[in-house]
Amino acid sequence: MSVTAAAGFVASGVHAGIRRARKDLALVHAVRRATGAAMWTQNRVRAAPVIVSIAHLELAQPQAVVINSGVANAATGERGELDALCTAAEAGRLLGLDAEEVIVLSTGVIGAPLPLDRVRAGLVDAAAALSGGGGVDAAEAILTTDTKPKTAVARGAGFIVGGMAKGSGMIHPNLATMLAVVTTDYALEEGEAIEFLRPAVEASFNSISVDGECSTNDAVVLLASAASLVDRTPGTDAAFAVALRRVCADLAAQVVADGEGATLVAEIVVTGAASDAEAKSIARRIATSPLVKTALFGRDANWGRILMAAGSAPFNGGYARLDPARVSLLYNGTPVLVRGEPQHVEPPVDGPTASIALELGLGDATASYLTSDLSYDYVRINAEYRS
Amino acid sequence: MSVTAAAGFVASGVHAGIRRARKDLALVHAVRRATGAAMWTQNRVRAAPVIVSIAHLELAQPQAVVINSGVANAATGERGELDALCTAAEAGRLLGLDAEEVIVLSTGVIGAPLPLDRVRAGLVDAAAALSGGGGVDAAEAILTTDTKPKTAVARGAGFIVGGMAKGSGMIHPNLATMLAVVTTDYALEEGEAIEFLRPAVEASFNSISVDGECSTNDAVVLLASAASLVDRTPGTDAAFAVALRRVCADLAAQVVADGEGATLVAEIVVTGAASDAEAKSIARRIATSPLVKTALFGRDANWGRILMAAGSAPFNGGYARLDPARVSLLYNGTPVLVRGEPQHVEPPVDGPTASIALELGLGDATASYLTSDLSYDYVRINAEYRS
Repeated sequence: MSVTAAAGFVASGVHAGIRRARKDLALVHAVRRATGAAMWTQNRVRAAPVIVSIAHLELAQPQAVVINSGVANAATGERGELDALCTAAEAGRLLGLDAEEVIVLSTGVIGAPLPLDRVRAGLVDAAAALSGGGGVDAAEAILTTDTKPKTAVARGAGFIVGGMAKGSGMIHPNLATMLAVVTTDYALEEGEAIEFLRPAVEASFNSISVDGECSTNDAVVLLASAASLVDRTPGTDAAFAVALRRVCADLAAQVVADGEGATLVAEIVVTGAASDAEAKSIARRIATSPLVKTALFGRDANWGRILMAAGSAPFNGGYARLDPARVSLLYNGTPVLVRGEPQHVEPPVDGPTASIALELGLGDATASYLTSDLSYDYVRINAEYRS
Repeated sequence: MSVTAAAGFVASGVHAGIRRARKDLALVHAVRRATGAAMWTQNRVRAAPVIVSIAHLELAQPQAVVINSGVANAATGERGELDALCTAAEAGRLLGLDAEEVIVLSTGVIGAPLPLDRVRAGLVDAAAALSGGGGVDAAEAILTTDTKPKTAVARGAGFIVGGMAKGSGMIHPNLATMLAVVTTDYALEEGEAIEFLRPAVEASFNSISVDGECSTNDAVVLLASAASLVDRTPGTDAAFAVALRRVCADLAAQVVADGEGATLVAEIVVTGAASDAEAKSIARRIATSPLVKTALFGRDANWGRILMAAGSAPFNGGYARLDPARVSLLYNGTPVLVRGEPQHVEPPVDGPTASIALELGLGDATASYLTSDLSYDYVRINAEYRS
């Protein structure tokens, strides 16, 4: 299960005391030499562990990942970077690795300092607890406002891809407060991991939104152990790419379904756009519109709001192209608007999912997006988060 | 008061039966020849009355404005444009004007057809009710989820500027579901009104946000009657520009304070940005961040979220420039971050207003924005709006 499904990895999740009475420190370790890569938040304000880990990845192949929940170690000034560096060094010391071989990830409150003494003591426990079944504990230790752990596994011909993720608020490209660690026993050369990881993330974690926020800490890490001993061919590479994408998409869908306060998951599909970038901007604008999301919560097929959102999707300093007279809209499969003419029908709206299909009639570009609704609980969770 | 404060205008507000038991149709009329201009939503999906009124303004100077609430007449296909045209023609017939001299504005549900028979019958009542004190009724008739009418008046040396506005959700540049009509007895030549209106709107209605939405119907209309007989000089022109801006800013502030579910108004001031466009993008991003707005609702000085938002402000296909090590942040006057270093102080957070001042340390550009918080009531109002 999780990050220990693939051969060659051990993991653990322990309570270090950063949070009250919950596991809050996870460790993932490649027992033999692994290769790896990561993708990071594009926010201009990057958390200290992000800054430190990007530097580490430029110097060495990653062999271990330390993740703490509770404190994001973001906007913590110079002390924050030192704390992240000490965390990596301590984990390296316990595992026999250079500090540069350790990736550090944090998630939680921004602006609060990392309790380094507790993290270091917790790392001793975490290192002692490392096991081939520890992926489940690790997946639990990285959660914040999540209501459940998120793990996924896909099997190829002789290899396995497995992963864990956390994230339920601030979920938005690029990568928001979303952490994921994916491991595989497929063999990847140095420098190859990023080529597989990038398209898988674009189609999964970068195509979901809970609240349109882009966090300071987001990261997706891929580690490959080569323990499967599969002989690589173009065919197995393709199969690995599919399996990696499936694990990422599975984890991303779990993140949306567990979105803060979510009572519904909506899939938004935009077709007929003038360009790929405009298709994605329109899908994203619908996925992040508070008026669309409150209507989804109210189970109200107020499709006019979807049009309103689609008509104001940022693109090139203006709005993405859209001709109201050519637009058709299917809401839960019911055509409510056909080439600009409203159909005066009420689509079914009950249930835990919704489907919004917008055909623009301008070109061939398409994009899809997963989003959750905006509920009372989203407001409650985020108004009370620190207290 | 309102649109009848300035000499030369009559107005009325009546119940036409578009909504239940509330005034829903407003009429504003310049009794002698007026000049005028309007600014419109930039949404690609424009409501039928917007399309019709833009065409009218190209053909004639506006002499009357009809506004209905309850139905936006947006996404209503060809019938919608015909309905808007018939509304203008009927108002023109009653007032002795060409249809092209009538501006039509609508606000309410998107996708529902305008009940034209009721609108036409209501126009007969509205025309009969026109009076020099009718600005108050008109201001009431244009409301939707607003909790109170919004009017403002400013007096210059011998002239008056007065106006009314509606808007409490979908408030966002460019002009969201926000309607405003401003009248003056200052004399403006044909073509001049837009030159005064544009900067006044940019500094007011285009610098506020309730939920980041940009509606299909937004409009600000300015009518000038010349009834004041003030001799124009560069000095009186400057005084008029100030008065117009003051009325627009007053109305805009009332719109934010009456934002759907708002319990607080926050002023966001960004200084030291690398460019004007980046200053405005950062201010807007903070003003529209769900995480910032829920923290404001919870009276939680979770300033890390402000940094997170500032670091992901769209600009030129990427994010606006920001160097975390140079950023300082004052929250309600308390320095919580000084050149990237957190100060570990808790600012006061009680009360109905908040002040967020972000100094970027990069340049001289500044921008300011007004926003409201995101509360349970925002969700309730918008989840239940149609039912």
